[in-house]
Amino acid sequence: MAYHEGLDAGLFQRRHQEAVARFQEWIRHFGIAAENNSVSESCEFTMGLLRDAGFQHVERIATDRHPGIFATLDAGAKRTLAVYFMYDVKQVEGQEWSVPPWEARLVEMPDLGTVVMGRGAVNQKGPESSFLAALHAIRGAKRKLPVNLVLLAEGEEEIGSPHIRQLVLTPTVRAALEKCDGIFMPDAAQDRDGTITISLGAKGVVEAELVASGKKWGRGPLKDIHSSNRARVDSPPWHLVQALNTLVDAKGDPAIDGLLAMVKPISAADQKMLDEAALRISEQSTKQSLGVEHWARDASWRQALEDICFRPTVNIEGLVGGYTGAGGMTILPHQAAAKLDLRLVPDMTWDDTVTKLKAHLNSRGYGDIEVNVTGGYDPTTTAADSRLVQVQRSVYRSAGVDPIMWPRRGGSWPGYVFTGAPLKLAAIHHGMGHGARAHAPDEYYLIDSKNPKLVGMDGAVRSFVDLLFALA
Amino acid sequence: MAYHEGLDAGLFQRRHQEAVARFQEWIRHFGIAAENNSVSESCEFTMGLLRDAGFQHVERIATDRHPGIFATLDAGAKRTLAVYFMYDVKQVEGQEWSVPPWEARLVEMPDLGTVVMGRGAVNQKGPESSFLAALHAIRGAKRKLPVNLVLLAEGEEEIGSPHIRQLVLTPTVRAALEKCDGIFMPDAAQDRDGTITISLGAKGVVEAELVASGKKWGRGPLKDIHSSNRARVDSPPWHLVQALNTLVDAKGDPAIDGLLAMVKPISAADQKMLDEAALRISEQSTKQSLGVEHWARDASWRQALEDICFRPTVNIEGLVGGYTGAGGMTILPHQAAAKLDLRLVPDMTWDDTVTKLKAHLNSRGYGDIEVNVTGGYDPTTTAADSRLVQVQRSVYRSAGVDPIMWPRRGGSWPGYVFTGAPLKLAAIHHGMGHGARAHAPDEYYLIDSKNPKLVGMDGAVRSFVDLLFALA
Repeated sequence: MAYHEGLDAGLFQRRHQEAVARFQEWIRHFGIAAENNSVSESCEFTMGLLRDAGFQHVERIATDRHPGIFATLDAGAKRTLAVYFMYDVKQVEGQEWSVPPWEARLVEMPDLGTVVMGRGAVNQKGPESSFLAALHAIRGAKRKLPVNLVLLAEGEEEIGSPHIRQLVLTPTVRAALEKCDGIFMPDAAQDRDGTITISLGAKGVVEAELVASGKKWGRGPLKDIHSSNRARVDSPPWHLVQALNTLVDAKGDPAIDGLLAMVKPISAADQKMLDEAALRISEQSTKQSLGVEHWARDASWRQALEDICFRPTVNIEGLVGGYTGAGGMTILPHQAAAKLDLRLVPDMTWDDTVTKLKAHLNSRGYGDIEVNVTGGYDPTTTAADSRLVQVQRSVYRSAGVDPIMWPRRGGSWPGYVFTGAPLKLAAIHHGMGHGARAHAPDEYYLIDSKNPKLVGMDGAVRSFVDLLFALA
Repeated sequence: MAYHEGLDAGLFQRRHQEAVARFQEWIRHFGIAAENNSVSESCEFTMGLLRDAGFQHVERIATDRHPGIFATLDAGAKRTLAVYFMYDVKQVEGQEWSVPPWEARLVEMPDLGTVVMGRGAVNQKGPESSFLAALHAIRGAKRKLPVNLVLLAEGEEEIGSPHIRQLVLTPTVRAALEKCDGIFMPDAAQDRDGTITISLGAKGVVEAELVASGKKWGRGPLKDIHSSNRARVDSPPWHLVQALNTLVDAKGDPAIDGLLAMVKPISAADQKMLDEAALRISEQSTKQSLGVEHWARDASWRQALEDICFRPTVNIEGLVGGYTGAGGMTILPHQAAAKLDLRLVPDMTWDDTVTKLKAHLNSRGYGDIEVNVTGGYDPTTTAADSRLVQVQRSVYRSAGVDPIMWPRRGGSWPGYVFTGAPLKLAAIHHGMGHGARAHAPDEYYLIDSKNPKLVGMDGAVRSFVDLLFALA
């Protein structure tokens, strides 16, 4: 029996409304780890989705903060594939959305079609919903799942997965993962022009808030005082600005002492991948989607691609201190903070970066500035010739797309807990379909495509069905 | 008839409750120019207070934004004194108060006594209420006011008095002010230790918001994008931090090109005043009230006093950009802003400072950063030997306090419109009494003192009565 027998487009269409509704309902049952907002409820809702999709064992796993989920689906198959889910989403505070972010409205977008717009749409509930719809479809076609599944979901991805190791190393979870051929995270891999990129890794990340305060400094005021006192009282906001200024060079690139010592040269294979990618990815549409006119350092397109894969960064996510309302307020603030994220490339590590950031501040006279690290990961890498990657490539090709091979995502995910010791699994993202604006306003995931280069949710579902059968 | 006949402590006590209630009600009728919040209503309320206090002519004067008030009280006296009021108050947004800021509650403070706590308590409604109570007291004692009064009130002091010149140069107002012997603003001059300081001037101020944006810069994103793009997209927040860093030197002192060229050397008379002040003002209690342990640059007490009078500053009032909520948010923000105030000493001017700030940013490669100037004043100076100052000094001495003569306030007020051309009036602050925490949480004004070194509201009222009779 051909693997796709009974799994035709008609089946996906018949189950389309049900799959979209399930996805929308999930957006409405959001959990935000950073705000301690509804995470437990969102965990329970997600567990229900997994049971409905056929997982026989669905277990809430406590961590030192927000719970994870461990689920297994034993299909009596030879091979077992692991799946990584996140059920939490990014905050929306301070963002201007054109639709309410938690209503998961269907919106028509020019040149795209119908999308679900809402927080978590593409990051990551849309792709995850399409994967669950694939399981429903296979069952609906009275077919047996061709592989067993081990699913791990966490509720702290958006705060840097501080307890992902705790989840992975839970004995039952670890034992289950050790039997897997690899792990994948559902993805919406198609860019706006239909291109698909297979990423062989991701940068690591350190998120940290730097706080300068009169109290910790031992200088400056203990509370906000009248700004005329600036003439005779030191200023925590200036202290912070001067400290920040030492973290980057004139071009804004990292200047933290010793930070780049562990950066590996780019391999010839990766250089070749970038050469090919530069020919295939549209610079113009990338610039347009980002709303930028120039690359940093006026880099060429090829260099900009290399930068996002291989250039470590120190980014300011936010600045907040003193008076932040309308107009002015003549105060000398007692405190100011900068929210940073640092992106890491091999062989930089989370541990080493945190240590060097603190040492740098200390040696430059800013040792009083608090470094509140909220989470993060090491970089992760999967070999291009691993079976999972090879199978994935063939699935995309059979769907008519020749994927661009890509050395490393600029964004981060906790793949290192799977690719590193002790598991050493291949770890990829997989899934046709399109969505964008992760972490930004008006995040969306494409449902019904009117763009011939892009598949909608049904096409995404098919790409998961295909992967499971191809792996088996 | 001795001037104080019928104006005894008993009278002030009998009218005490009424004066306190009037003051509390004024705090509740607040207007905040920076927020366009209730300014017109507060203006009307203030006009009612002036009519009640005996001003025969009370006129609302329109400006290009918030209205001022012009009021006259013709007592048939020989001399005319001008009074400057502000009826607006600072915002409270983002501040943590221990009591609601608009309820004007009576609060017991250790070592002080009963205070009214609320926004505007000391800056400036408490002292202004005590002055109005003095007018009520004189009328209540069936006495004629010994001087005529010309009162000018503005509702934009806390946003830098952008239309004070418009008010002063209104023909009827200007004509009335030209007949005056000088102008004073009601004050709570007693420090916590009872000390009174007569300030012969004030620093000028420029308030400005610096905004770095991808749009104006032509680099960086037009909206917030995922922070992984920092590797290839320029960052408006870093652009702002680097621009700010050029505005000050390593010690945090002004480094704006050419800014200090117009700074005059400190005169021998001012140096002598500072020498004497350093012996009389308590360093310890000043540090305690500010919540600081060290002066900037580890200055001596004498130097710290000189600094607050004569050192120009560039202060950060607030920083705001990108994500400012709990935890982190992996975005590359499209915009960031710093709210600054710059304090000016003679012969720096508001105009020249704004010009030099913009020129500096431009020449350092930050010409794209918007400089939104919200208001400000030139420095102001009144001669130590002017009659108004001499009379004031004698009033304080007769109340048992030998005032410290002080060259220049570190804070700012729009005295330059009175002391400069065309009016060239002597301009002072006057009033016994105590209050603190202007612009900060838990602002207060002392009503009933249990500290023998401090007078309460009745003593403040007396100090205004005394000034009026002594001037006549």
